[in-house]
Amino acid sequence: VTADLPIAVDAMGGDHAPSEIVAGARQAADTLGVRIVLVGDPDVLGDAAGLPVIACREVIDMHEDGAKAVRIKKDSSLVRAAEAVRDGRASAMVSAGNTGATMAAALLRMHRVSGVARPAIATPIPVPGSTPTILVDSGANAECVAPWLLQFAQMGAVLAVERYGIASPRVGLLSIGEEASKGTTLVKEAHALLKERLGGGAVFVGNVEGRDLMTDAVDVVVTDGFTGNVALKTLEGGMRFAFNKVLEVMVSSDEAKEAAKVLLPSLAPIAEELDPDSHGGAVLLGVNGVCIISHGSSSARAVVNAVRVGRDAVQADLVGKVALAVGRDD
Amino acid sequence: VTADLPIAVDAMGGDHAPSEIVAGARQAADTLGVRIVLVGDPDVLGDAAGLPVIACREVIDMHEDGAKAVRIKKDSSLVRAAEAVRDGRASAMVSAGNTGATMAAALLRMHRVSGVARPAIATPIPVPGSTPTILVDSGANAECVAPWLLQFAQMGAVLAVERYGIASPRVGLLSIGEEASKGTTLVKEAHALLKERLGGGAVFVGNVEGRDLMTDAVDVVVTDGFTGNVALKTLEGGMRFAFNKVLEVMVSSDEAKEAAKVLLPSLAPIAEELDPDSHGGAVLLGVNGVCIISHGSSSARAVVNAVRVGRDAVQADLVGKVALAVGRDD
Repeated sequence: VTADLPIAVDAMGGDHAPSEIVAGARQAADTLGVRIVLVGDPDVLGDAAGLPVIACREVIDMHEDGAKAVRIKKDSSLVRAAEAVRDGRASAMVSAGNTGATMAAALLRMHRVSGVARPAIATPIPVPGSTPTILVDSGANAECVAPWLLQFAQMGAVLAVERYGIASPRVGLLSIGEEASKGTTLVKEAHALLKERLGGGAVFVGNVEGRDLMTDAVDVVVTDGFTGNVALKTLEGGMRFAFNKVLEVMVSSDEAKEAAKVLLPSLAPIAEELDPDSHGGAVLLGVNGVCIISHGSSSARAVVNAVRVGRDAVQADLVGKVALAVGRDD
Repeated sequence: VTADLPIAVDAMGGDHAPSEIVAGARQAADTLGVRIVLVGDPDVLGDAAGLPVIACREVIDMHEDGAKAVRIKKDSSLVRAAEAVRDGRASAMVSAGNTGATMAAALLRMHRVSGVARPAIATPIPVPGSTPTILVDSGANAECVAPWLLQFAQMGAVLAVERYGIASPRVGLLSIGEEASKGTTLVKEAHALLKERLGGGAVFVGNVEGRDLMTDAVDVVVTDGFTGNVALKTLEGGMRFAFNKVLEVMVSSDEAKEAAKVLLPSLAPIAEELDPDSHGGAVLLGVNGVCIISHGSSSARAVVNAVRVGRDAVQADLVGKVALAVGRDD
């Protein structure tokens, strides 16, 4: 894969597709120094904002069973985007569509990196004032065994190095107490493996708890995809709740609105850093190609940031480095 | 158990023990129409704010292995408090001490309610403007089987009825998607059981996600103790983060401080409702006695609220109703 190939953007996936996706893709092409190819139905896309299009006729919607949809809808934008990466017509794929289908398309078309047992989703948790915490697996594998968690850690550490420039990423294992004796059988086994075999310049800091996710105490938090997804959505719900409450108060009276004007210039950058649109989405680690998963409600800005993450992953040869990291013991 | 027995308060447990605990116990005795008996070392407690004391000489500290400590420290305040309930010298116990040890003391001394496979911790998640969401199990059982989750749901529904007056509690199963096909094997099996056998006037609303915890969409959220504890601590960490950020901005300049004065009267009640001290702590459901677990950093106010929850549970015969709920199919 070379960096001069275009990045394939799934124009049909996401709550605001195709308009926001196409707008974001156009903006990315104009500002990021990358070529873009949209993947979608030409009849729907019209002039496609002047971008080239890989034509397909099917769309996998947000609520379909991902794995099943990928098997049936062979001419869907997600499947065609993954094939473009596989066939060397694109350097990376970006989608804000059905996450399960994105994983399935990437896995079935690009295949796994040799030595990777299971691909995993690495999602940046914003920590204003610091680099994000990478949560991996945030949803790909509901049920895991300990050696997979070791690989999630190794792959997540590579991402921390490449995406955030952290020389020796601190890796924590999500549990319900700091002591190695706490947690499930899976956590105890993973703890022992991480302690012995993490390698690659990463540092295993032991068990961490949910409250550490939004702090700068740890760079990569490893967990199974069920716990990771629950933690991610719990945090999103909590943050949304807190911000909505503060906003409600700020518009509750004329006096409050005046006071809010004073505080908003300081609050806005924090809200900005907490906005998932700012972070460019999650990376599916362990497949043989760069696959960026942007959240379903992605705006044009989210697409631009997702393309940037994809571009950087290609330039850094993230896939090659993941292969080296997990193959360390071979 | 009769309501005229005193409530046993572990005077030695918690980050601010004994001073805050004793102060809270005194206040509870003065304001809640209940008798209190402190459990602790008389030499440490001094005049014990004029409250009677069940004397003991040992303390289990916050970082000891709970189950082991309970076996060894037979003269600890936690063990003595649980024995007081077992022996009919107290109607309930309240502790802000080591959670694992509190569970172990209650389980080993009071035993389980007949028919209950595993006791579980039910923690109220504050939802300002609505009744809290009861999260159960929030940490007692790291690894679970589906029939336990059914019982957690049945016990949690009893608590929703008795503590919050919800006639037909809506029970949700914590998962990573609303579809019954999503989640782990445990979740899928529990989903089927809950659909068929919840009973007791409660309504199974299907799978819910982490983002539903702080909403009024559901009254009881059921999960294993590992996932529940991770979700709880993730939410606590996220809320603390958000509030600290808002507070930082509010004191960042003289102008900001003036603006904050306008907004604080509206923000304070929200912060108050989100403060765990306001909610009186968690209930250990399924043991043969009322056991209230207050958080480690409990203030006097938290102790008062925990005693209130204990008093209400005794008056409502929560234990008897839990026994009926789980024994429904016998």
